[in-house]
Amino acid sequence: MSTGLIPRHELEFQLYEVLDTEGLLNRPRFADHSRETFDSAIETARRIAADKLQPHNRKGDVEEPRIENGKVRIIPEVKAALAAIAEAGFLAAHHDYDSGGSQLPWAVAQACHAQFHAANVATFAYGFLTAAAANLLETYGTEEQKRLYRTPMIEGRFFGTMAMSEPNAGSSLGDVRTRAEPAGDGSYRLSGTKMWISGGEHEMAENIVHLVLARVKGAPAGVKGLSLFLVPRYRLDADGRPAEPNDVALAGLNHKMGFRGTVNTLLAFGEGGDCRGWLVGPENKGLACMFHMMNEARIIIGMCAAAMGYAGFEVSLDYARNRPQGRPVDAKDPDGPPVAIVEHPDVKRMLLAQKAYTEGALALGFYLAALVDDQKTAPEPRRREEALLLLDLLTPVMKAWSADYGLAANQLAIQVLGGYGYTREYPVEQFYRDNRLNPIHEGTNGIQALDLLGRKVGMNGGEAFRLLLGEIHATAHQAEFDASLAGYGKALRGAATVAAEATGILLDARRSSGAAAALCNATAYLDMVGHLVIGWMWLRQALAAKSASPHHQGKRHACAWFFLWELPKIHSLARVLINLDTTAAVMEDAWF
Amino acid sequence: MSTGLIPRHELEFQLYEVLDTEGLLNRPRFADHSRETFDSAIETARRIAADKLQPHNRKGDVEEPRIENGKVRIIPEVKAALAAIAEAGFLAAHHDYDSGGSQLPWAVAQACHAQFHAANVATFAYGFLTAAAANLLETYGTEEQKRLYRTPMIEGRFFGTMAMSEPNAGSSLGDVRTRAEPAGDGSYRLSGTKMWISGGEHEMAENIVHLVLARVKGAPAGVKGLSLFLVPRYRLDADGRPAEPNDVALAGLNHKMGFRGTVNTLLAFGEGGDCRGWLVGPENKGLACMFHMMNEARIIIGMCAAAMGYAGFEVSLDYARNRPQGRPVDAKDPDGPPVAIVEHPDVKRMLLAQKAYTEGALALGFYLAALVDDQKTAPEPRRREEALLLLDLLTPVMKAWSADYGLAANQLAIQVLGGYGYTREYPVEQFYRDNRLNPIHEGTNGIQALDLLGRKVGMNGGEAFRLLLGEIHATAHQAEFDASLAGYGKALRGAATVAAEATGILLDARRSSGAAAALCNATAYLDMVGHLVIGWMWLRQALAAKSASPHHQGKRHACAWFFLWELPKIHSLARVLINLDTTAAVMEDAWF
Repeated sequence: MSTGLIPRHELEFQLYEVLDTEGLLNRPRFADHSRETFDSAIETARRIAADKLQPHNRKGDVEEPRIENGKVRIIPEVKAALAAIAEAGFLAAHHDYDSGGSQLPWAVAQACHAQFHAANVATFAYGFLTAAAANLLETYGTEEQKRLYRTPMIEGRFFGTMAMSEPNAGSSLGDVRTRAEPAGDGSYRLSGTKMWISGGEHEMAENIVHLVLARVKGAPAGVKGLSLFLVPRYRLDADGRPAEPNDVALAGLNHKMGFRGTVNTLLAFGEGGDCRGWLVGPENKGLACMFHMMNEARIIIGMCAAAMGYAGFEVSLDYARNRPQGRPVDAKDPDGPPVAIVEHPDVKRMLLAQKAYTEGALALGFYLAALVDDQKTAPEPRRREEALLLLDLLTPVMKAWSADYGLAANQLAIQVLGGYGYTREYPVEQFYRDNRLNPIHEGTNGIQALDLLGRKVGMNGGEAFRLLLGEIHATAHQAEFDASLAGYGKALRGAATVAAEATGILLDARRSSGAAAALCNATAYLDMVGHLVIGWMWLRQALAAKSASPHHQGKRHACAWFFLWELPKIHSLARVLINLDTTAAVMEDAWF
Repeated sequence: MSTGLIPRHELEFQLYEVLDTEGLLNRPRFADHSRETFDSAIETARRIAADKLQPHNRKGDVEEPRIENGKVRIIPEVKAALAAIAEAGFLAAHHDYDSGGSQLPWAVAQACHAQFHAANVATFAYGFLTAAAANLLETYGTEEQKRLYRTPMIEGRFFGTMAMSEPNAGSSLGDVRTRAEPAGDGSYRLSGTKMWISGGEHEMAENIVHLVLARVKGAPAGVKGLSLFLVPRYRLDADGRPAEPNDVALAGLNHKMGFRGTVNTLLAFGEGGDCRGWLVGPENKGLACMFHMMNEARIIIGMCAAAMGYAGFEVSLDYARNRPQGRPVDAKDPDGPPVAIVEHPDVKRMLLAQKAYTEGALALGFYLAALVDDQKTAPEPRRREEALLLLDLLTPVMKAWSADYGLAANQLAIQVLGGYGYTREYPVEQFYRDNRLNPIHEGTNGIQALDLLGRKVGMNGGEAFRLLLGEIHATAHQAEFDASLAGYGKALRGAATVAAEATGILLDARRSSGAAAALCNATAYLDMVGHLVIGWMWLRQALAAKSASPHHQGKRHACAWFFLWELPKIHSLARVLINLDTTAAVMEDAWF
């Protein structure tokens, strides 16, 4: 059976044919690298994914973390896999050499991580949370915090979490109640309860470093009074070794439908009155710091949803190629030999849709990863600024669109396998359960939509959105020089124009008639922009797929499918958005 | 917390306000009934659903059927609930008094069953399979078969199954290999293996009556050589009591993602060379007989998907009303009191979509149930014919559309609950897992689409489809007399016209250029027709909802939402269908 990993030629296509990842080698930061070192990192990641992660994907689901004698017990394969990942340097692949990293481009690091997501998302979650937390400390931590905490994190000795939500504060972070009081020695005493903390408690690491949002006594109400604290499970002794417990108590485990291998916890901080935390970044600027981690996490969640979608695509493709059933619809002889179901048009449709969704989302993920690299290392300052603008704008799109359509892909994967796909003997039902988390965590998709329409498209006078439209029109223009793609160029241009019109009307309405009417269809707006961006990604891929190779033919064909069956959605959605429809908003509770 | 059952006012609205179920009382068959006897049956069903089915819905999922000492062990609550259902007469509610039934209209029986589906689909599955098998015997069985098998089935002493699929013959029934050889005494010796048999083995009934598709030695190849056999788990003694085992062996259990409470089996018939079956209906006409059961089952699966969608809607509505989180988007004070999330437009959207999908599907289910009643009891022969035509046409739409959108509703229910919805502490994740089966079983949705486009719309020279269009235009016409609904009438007329155009082109193409090109987008075609039919159902509901009651206001509002956000899909789909697009069909295997 198929491994369900992302084929190497797909990753290479995204990095080297659609994007110019090799061009990064001209930048000083990547001077020691070469195409060979990139490929070797990707190949190492593939080996770890296949050998260390995938074999226990099902086991981690069936034998989910549980409490035994007060300790969280997790199957040993998880720790072993994470050790292999850390040892190979994948938790800090893009960090500075000085900080223990390998200075790989973020895009290459994501190509490595995508394979971990596809192989075993629940196990790698401990890794990417730790990497994201380490990254946050790299940016906002003091030198001491970096030395004492970040270094052991990228070495895989300490793990990291982000602790924001509380039982009564999920989407509404302004209602966070966890308190912090200065202890007089530079540290703070924390007290409060945090909910939904992934990786919040286990015995796999020497220490767990929680990044906790809390409110310093006397701070303003709402999100403007939140500060970020580093709260270790164990305090460190003079030599930096974990020593006495830091009054962080496990208050319970959440039992999820999927993503079961990642322990999810309710944590009580400071029940004994002696939980110490150290401020990260300035007081009352905690949310801004946390967003550094969250933005990274949101792109990663999108990649993760795409990769899991891809895994299901691969498994269902393999099944379809090997399952004989039925005959072509024109065949007359009921005794004739059956064909593999991949020959049936409806099965091809389900495979093509999976390909269009997951490779579209992957392309966007790698595009964003390249923006991260540009933002940090592009020689021209203007390009760095542009990269940051596009990154801010597209992060919520990547997170939400990819989560929705990665899941849609997994749903189709089950359908291709039919009854078999519905059984736990095949992996697709687990992908479908695991992937269902992605529209929920790291900010629900509804929150992403509000972020996009309520904040991002209007920021800096709409500069980021104009920039995006410019890039889209540039691709459309390029396509118009290629006879076979000119029609798609025109269609993309038309879609961009109508999306721009809807955007303008919504932004105007927001200024004139208040936020409520403009924002009430934010989800539909994100779906529209998402389809526009993914249509653009498909045209970019088609432009890069000029050869007669089967892989390139498939790319052009999937582009055609997306433009024909999916792109028109932009026009239907825009029509309703342009009318500032309030049908959902004015529905009264009593009418349900 | 909400019970998750379908509110009584909703069932009454469908039966008495949208449909004229009371009008059936004028027909001789229902002369002994009254509105009171209908309502009392519905109320009894609700009590059984709440008291006997719902309490073990989660338990049946967690403690799924397993083999212990060679026997299938099922939690005892299942048997007790089924006994209560049978005892109250719900397995034969619409059967003749003479046959032990209560001669209730099918529509009323479905209102009762819908509550069982919503409360515990996995337990009631044993019941509806038994009822459907009993119904088949009522139509095609000999008097002896009815007496010996059907009567104990409707009394809940024997259970029934349908045994069609085999490990290598799922969608392709023409490849069924199970053999039957005349034994010389009127019975046949069966041998073969059947896969995916729900309720195939357990100890809850005195006997299990398998309805088995098999091929009599020398029969033609393909579906034209299939015959239907009654194969009991135990043969009956002279007094009709189950006696010696009939060589039907459990070869394994399938472990599913959801619907776990319904044991699903692999069965070996005649491994010991002595499995006896008795022909039901004529030799080589087995599939036609089985379709009697399947067509009923397909409508029921659609009802079941709608009811489970409804259960999720109710639970998420209740949650949304009771979960405080965030503030209105215009509120400035971060310390102001939070609102219940039902006040947020995006949450209203998710609730409204669930309402539109599930009440639309329920309305279609009840419409079909009323057609079943008309087909059997309408005074005018022409109406009976019309009812049969519409029933044949709309059965695949009901099954597939309802399964797709009932599941979409459950996905939204999880999203409303956020992280909580993803945990096993709330019931919505189970609805989502359970409902995922519905697009697969009783003929996958792809098979339904081929049935609709390849067979149903063209049958009798397109008579059924013309009839449907006539009914739709009649409703549109009626709406045009109501100022507030006239716009929807016009929109429905436009949608019907474009759907008719696409249908004509596809049927022409089928005649001129072969089936392949015409049928390759059958799924999109079903989606288009489904949206047309559900739009029609919504306009029928809006027309019936004339009062100022909150329930009626909600109906009109959900109609508005469906017409605005969903109906336009018909036009996008029709555009591609009309061009006889073959993008998916011409995709080559190697290009994936």
